Amino acid sequence: MNTNVDPLPSRLVHELSSPAATGALGESSILVLPVGAIEGHGPHLPLSTDALIAEASTTAAVARAAGKGVDVWQLPTLSITKSDEHAWAAGTLWLEPETMLRTLVDIGRSVLATPSRTLVFLNGHGGNVAILAVALRELRRRFGLRTFLLPAPNVSLPAGAIGLPDELGMGIHGGFVETSLVMHLRPDLVDAASFVRRVPEELAEFRHVGFAGRPVTFGWLSDDFGPSGVIGDPSGSNAAAGASLFESWLTFAAEALAEIERFPLQPR
Amino acid sequence: MNTNVDPLPSRLVHELSSPAATGALGESSILVLPVGAIEGHGPHLPLSTDALIAEASTTAAVARAAGKGVDVWQLPTLSITKSDEHAWAAGTLWLEPETMLRTLVDIGRSVLATPSRTLVFLNGHGGNVAILAVALRELRRRFGLRTFLLPAPNVSLPAGAIGLPDELGMGIHGGFVETSLVMHLRPDLVDAASFVRRVPEELAEFRHVGFAGRPVTFGWLSDDFGPSGVIGDPSGSNAAAGASLFESWLTFAAEALAEIERFPLQPR
Amino acid sequence: MNTNVDPLPSRLVHELSSPAATGALGESSILVLPVGAIEGHGPHLPLSTDALIAEASTTAAVARAAGKGVDVWQLPTLSITKSDEHAWAAGTLWLEPETMLRTLVDIGRSVLATPSRTLVFLNGHGGNVAILAVALRELRRRFGLRTFLLPAPNVSLPAGAIGLPDELGMGIHGGFVETSLVMHLRPDLVDAASFVRRVPEELAEFRHVGFAGRPVTFGWLSDDFGPSGVIGDPSGSNAAAGASLFESWLTFAAEALAEIERFPLQPR
Amino acid sequence: MNTNVDPLPSRLVHELSSPAATGALGESSILVLPVGAIEGHGPHLPLSTDALIAEASTTAAVARAAGKGVDVWQLPTLSITKSDEHAWAAGTLWLEPETMLRTLVDIGRSVLATPSRTLVFLNGHGGNVAILAVALRELRRRFGLRTFLLPAPNVSLPAGAIGLPDELGMGIHGGFVETSLVMHLRPDLVDAASFVRRVPEELAEFRHVGFAGRPVTFGWLSDDFGPSGVIGDPSGSNAAAGASLFESWLTFAAEALAEIERFPLQPR
Amino acid sequence: MNTNVDPLPSRLVHELSSPAATGALGESSILVLPVGAIEGHGPHLPLSTDALIAEASTTAAVARAAGKGVDVWQLPTLSITKSDEHAWAAGTLWLEPETMLRTLVDIGRSVLATPSRTLVFLNGHGGNVAILAVALRELRRRFGLRTFLLPAPNVSLPAGAIGLPDELGMGIHGGFVETSLVMHLRPDLVDAASFVRRVPEELAEFRHVGFAGRPVTFGWLSDDFGPSGVIGDPSGSNAAAGASLFESWLTFAAEALAEIERFPLQPR
Amino acid sequence: MNTNVDPLPSRLVHELSSPAATGALGESSILVLPVGAIEGHGPHLPLSTDALIAEASTTAAVARAAGKGVDVWQLPTLSITKSDEHAWAAGTLWLEPETMLRTLVDIGRSVLATPSRTLVFLNGHGGNVAILAVALRELRRRFGLRTFLLPAPNVSLPAGAIGLPDELGMGIHGGFVETSLVMHLRPDLVDAASFVRRVPEELAEFRHVGFAGRPVTFGWLSDDFGPSGVIGDPSGSNAAAGASLFESWLTFAAEALAEIERFPLQPR
Repeated sequence: MNTNVDPLPSRLVHELSSPAATGALGESSILVLPVGAIEGHGPHLPLSTDALIAEASTTAAVARAAGKGVDVWQLPTLSITKSDEHAWAAGTLWLEPETMLRTLVDIGRSVLATPSRTLVFLNGHGGNVAILAVALRELRRRFGLRTFLLPAPNVSLPAGAIGLPDELGMGIHGGFVETSLVMHLRPDLVDAASFVRRVPEELAEFRHVGFAGRPVTFGWLSDDFGPSGVIGDPSGSNAAAGASLFESWLTFAAEALAEIERFPLQPR
Repeated sequence: MNTNVDPLPSRLVHELSSPAATGALGESSILVLPVGAIEGHGPHLPLSTDALIAEASTTAAVARAAGKGVDVWQLPTLSITKSDEHAWAAGTLWLEPETMLRTLVDIGRSVLATPSRTLVFLNGHGGNVAILAVALRELRRRFGLRTFLLPAPNVSLPAGAIGLPDELGMGIHGGFVETSLVMHLRPDLVDAASFVRRVPEELAEFRHVGFAGRPVTFGWLSDDFGPSGVIGDPSGSNAAAGASLFESWLTFAAEALAEIERFPLQPR
Repeated sequence: MNTNVDPLPSRLVHELSSPAATGALGESSILVLPVGAIEGHGPHLPLSTDALIAEASTTAAVARAAGKGVDVWQLPTLSITKSDEHAWAAGTLWLEPETMLRTLVDIGRSVLATPSRTLVFLNGHGGNVAILAVALRELRRRFGLRTFLLPAPNVSLPAGAIGLPDELGMGIHGGFVETSLVMHLRPDLVDAASFVRRVPEELAEFRHVGFAGRPVTFGWLSDDFGPSGVIGDPSGSNAAAGASLFESWLTFAAEALAEIERFPLQPR
Repeated sequence: MNTNVDPLPSRLVHELSSPAATGALGESSILVLPVGAIEGHGPHLPLSTDALIAEASTTAAVARAAGKGVDVWQLPTLSITKSDEHAWAAGTLWLEPETMLRTLVDIGRSVLATPSRTLVFLNGHGGNVAILAVALRELRRRFGLRTFLLPAPNVSLPAGAIGLPDELGMGIHGGFVETSLVMHLRPDLVDAASFVRRVPEELAEFRHVGFAGRPVTFGWLSDDFGPSGVIGDPSGSNAAAGASLFESWLTFAAEALAEIERFPLQPR
Repeated sequence: MNTNVDPLPSRLVHELSSPAATGALGESSILVLPVGAIEGHGPHLPLSTDALIAEASTTAAVARAAGKGVDVWQLPTLSITKSDEHAWAAGTLWLEPETMLRTLVDIGRSVLATPSRTLVFLNGHGGNVAILAVALRELRRRFGLRTFLLPAPNVSLPAGAIGLPDELGMGIHGGFVETSLVMHLRPDLVDAASFVRRVPEELAEFRHVGFAGRPVTFGWLSDDFGPSGVIGDPSGSNAAAGASLFESWLTFAAEALAEIERFPLQPR
Repeated sequence: MNTNVDPLPSRLVHELSSPAATGALGESSILVLPVGAIEGHGPHLPLSTDALIAEASTTAAVARAAGKGVDVWQLPTLSITKSDEHAWAAGTLWLEPETMLRTLVDIGRSVLATPSRTLVFLNGHGGNVAILAVALRELRRRFGLRTFLLPAPNVSLPAGAIGLPDELGMGIHGGFVETSLVMHLRPDLVDAASFVRRVPEELAEFRHVGFAGRPVTFGWLSDDFGPSGVIGDPSGSNAAAGASLFESWLTFAAEALAEIERFPLQPR
């Protein structure tokens, strides 16, 4: 992967032995779980788009933050998650909401066997945000953990600014941002010949109802707006834009991890 | 209640007979479910704060929108919901996440027996937002419904502007907005003598991590920041401010319901 | 509502603040949860029949008993419950048995955060009786609560005497008793022009098998005996009979609450 | 067993082969599932009391009814059921309510593979009544079966008459009726030297609250009234009384099965 | 039953009273749960084949081992289990995997109320092996029990040797072994006129993929290989072979129970 | 990884786009899901041992078989699985049995959106075998899939031959085989200085009861035999032995995949 960071194997918890993990971690150590997805992203992006972004982002952010002295570690990537809105698309591997919540609860419970009491979900799939938010609280109530949700670069842009201007704030699935990021990280997996604009322009006139960023949200499946499942415009995507988006995000993420380390919320 | 609207009993679906409901509703009718909470709101507000705001808001918004020709109807209030962050507080009645999700799924399934295919959650409890978002999609995938989430006035302010400036964006539970709204709707239930500022000022310095509006969210219980469970400053709350907030919201909500009616998402 | 009682707001737990609830309640305080239903009741009664009877009955009974010195309090009404036998009827909002049981368990768990250790289900829907009975024991075993089931006036008549004689003991859904009660409590919601006798007379010859009161019971859905879902005869229903039934019940219910207070079953 | 009936092996469905079962059964055939319990019954009765009564009763009732031309068949006994109120007693094998309900649903689903559409629970454990009542409706709604609940002789006496007069209507667990029945059916398993009266006389003064037969019921565990778990008085129990109770019940049960056969409720 | 053993009623835990069970059992006592099945076994064997083999085997093995001084006891037979592969066959009563697992967990939890800490599943249905293996560990982790899985004679033969040579190792359901065992134990239930060879010979050429004994296993339903559901050849079955198989197994089982008693695994 | 095979990216389904997956796959295509584990493996092996073996084995086997014309494809690795026996070990990430089963069911359901109807679990964790076996049948019954379980090289050796002779057949967790395999695949993750023999020799005398390969199995947690959780002897492990084991397995696995392709079991 072209993440421009020097991987630190020792920051991968799962590459340690169990006793080594006990030795390396302390109560204030931060464990970061990359949360991806395997789901249809149109004809130009791989099914693993969200998983590879989540994993590469985590690796880079952990390295960057660790390099600045933050006590932060990477867990193995949770690749198969709640992609129910793409259930219709061949190759999507999706968990029902209850399965996903149970999985997150089980992972939270597992953390109790380590010295660490801080778990960060670094999430690369917008469709996971709500269930991860439920899990944040559930893990705190049941296990007393400090829990955080950190968006990967494909789901972290400010509301109202998802995608290029002519994506009308609706570049949320397979659009410019996501496509550019994959062109940066895994250019071999992108099929630029298949770039087609799929912006549901009929939604743009609505002031209150819409995708993230509007006050009234709605339940949608990705084929509600056309058979490709893409929502956005990958047309002008390019690796340089992806690299720039990734780097901006990396600065943010490393700062965020440093904030998490000293955030005044105690284990319970 | 002091909602300044003329209640339209015929807009309460549950006050119709079953055959009358079949006759009154059509495929494009909008059913609005007020979603409240019964949970500790500090010493100055009643346990039913979120339930009464959700119900009064729904009654007013349905009346306002119906008066403008929108085909919209009110369901009975779901009062006991996911208040797990206040589980510690006497009088809180809370559902586990799985119970809440099952309840919402069961309600969505119930809608299939009516002619209507549109269900709106009008939500007065911030702690419900995530699980309701999960339900939006679940009801669409399983039942083909058009589903929407419309925030009540105590959870609908723009990110970054929750509460007065000196609440530092953290007036999220029992603060100025919520207290003023209850002073407007049910002044008899507010104990102004118990107004105490409870703003976790130590969080204000964090740029990335924080409550809604910051990019990195976290799992919190309401006694993480002090034994009262209040997060905000009710000090200057007053009924006039509440009336003004309510009226502003009402304009927004009536417009939103009109948008929902013509929103280009078909039943499946 | 025409309940002829002076409401005591201070007996509504949810209208107290959480600290006030802690102060007002003691271990021997009785919490009464009105349990209603939203379900088809034929063309003459509202969907909310059981919910409004349960709530009005609870308000009246709590006031009557409190007036006699019983330490008793009202919780918010649980309106949406196990109406699976009316799932076919437009407007019915029904929970699956597991959802209903989980809801009751969650409410029981919630009581543990209060000083009280006594929970009464005051039930206005016959279809809830069995699952509430399951919950009585579950809450005692898991949480050590004192739990009781008190029937509302529409489900509390002696076996063999449900309805008028010519209802043949089968006035169990939308018949004389229930209709008269709603004519007393909410006459505006009754459509007397739609009164039609729907007694499954073919069942009357059976000595052993039948509705409640016969030793052998059976699984029925409300459209097993005709498309209206009514089982009974509302023909002669009137408000005066409803008032009389309500008052008789009230005497019983207040005595029952007094008995519950001193019933020799300890919290565990 | 001393049931005084000639067993008809061919009425045991499970002793047929699968093709033979298909051949022997028709849509109107009645399948009877004996539902017992394995639970503490004090020092004088075996843990299997309810299971053996349920099984012997079913065998006898099926034989009696079949002898009169009723098309009725016996399923294998469900021995381990919802004995949560005796969870504390050594040897009790108990299912949680959800497990019991799932088991009954699974059995109902299994019936769909046979030609029969009628399932009768013949129940020998009072603690199962509520969950079986839930299952009656669940199986009808989900699978369209005709479902019935027929009480075994130890749970079928009229309300107000459970046990001898001096058991005060509280001979509900290990009292005269149950003990006499086991002395009739399996005298070798009864320890008459351990007969001790355990009637919670302090409950007798209550008019409204009490065990089955009173309008207000409550959640109890069998050790709420003493460490033996017995509720009743086995003192005068004897096999002759058991034989008489059994024979009376048998007359009733055979008539009830004949009624079930012609009961005007259709499969759905 | 023709088990050629002298039944020891006192070894049936459920025929003891609860206090007697407490007195008879100690921490090292072994409780054996016969696990059967009610499922189609072709036209020649009864639906109860696995249940009757499991029960008779347990009775015999407990008696044999107890006679040699092993502290071992019999629990009531769990007859209705995970027969999902025979769900299509009339008379099969099957539990879903989750129901079966919950049942086993509930039984394990029940054991905690006795002095014993050792539970053995004596299993007569091949389709239960996997879920019982899951339960072995679940009961140890959750309840600290010593748990064991002991195969009944119809599921205990060495891999590669299931059935006669010309059954090609595929005499797994209704074949020579199982049929001979039932001819020994309950000859009245066997229909020798219906013996038909049903060996899926097309599978024999596969070296790696196949039924138990091959390294690669697969998911099958019993009608995948023909409409009878039989997999094996009952043709030459006879009671003498059944008696011999049973006796060989009995020697093994009694030794195994003695090993279990002294196996160096402590309760936790 | 040192797998000595040329990776075929096009065989990774998740690196295809959804439309490309639809195009590439047919009904007879075989999808292979690597099933690993993240769990304590003693002080000498990484937590990811089973996950990395499962993934590397799948990659190699798919390449080998595809090279011989088998239509076989690789799904993303399921890394976090049922490691409940290692729940005590820091770094273990484990799912409860119900979570694991739901995950497998959800993945099976997902396969229905592709053209393929064959799913193979290639499993690298012994603790998953039973629940995977349950899933094989569940996916066939519910979804009609052809399902297979193929053991990875660390769980595929013949019963009785797990490990070197002096591991006494108990080299099942962190022993010679597993350690040698990791030394072959990821030598950088092995700490040879921590090799310590941990064979529970006290179990060797038992003829009937023991780990896989003995007829009577038991429920164990990995710290039942010592605090390291290792069961086996890594002492003489070496990369050459690992390479040899891997290559032998690869021959078997490629043949097995070819057998699976033509195995006479139809989709339902």
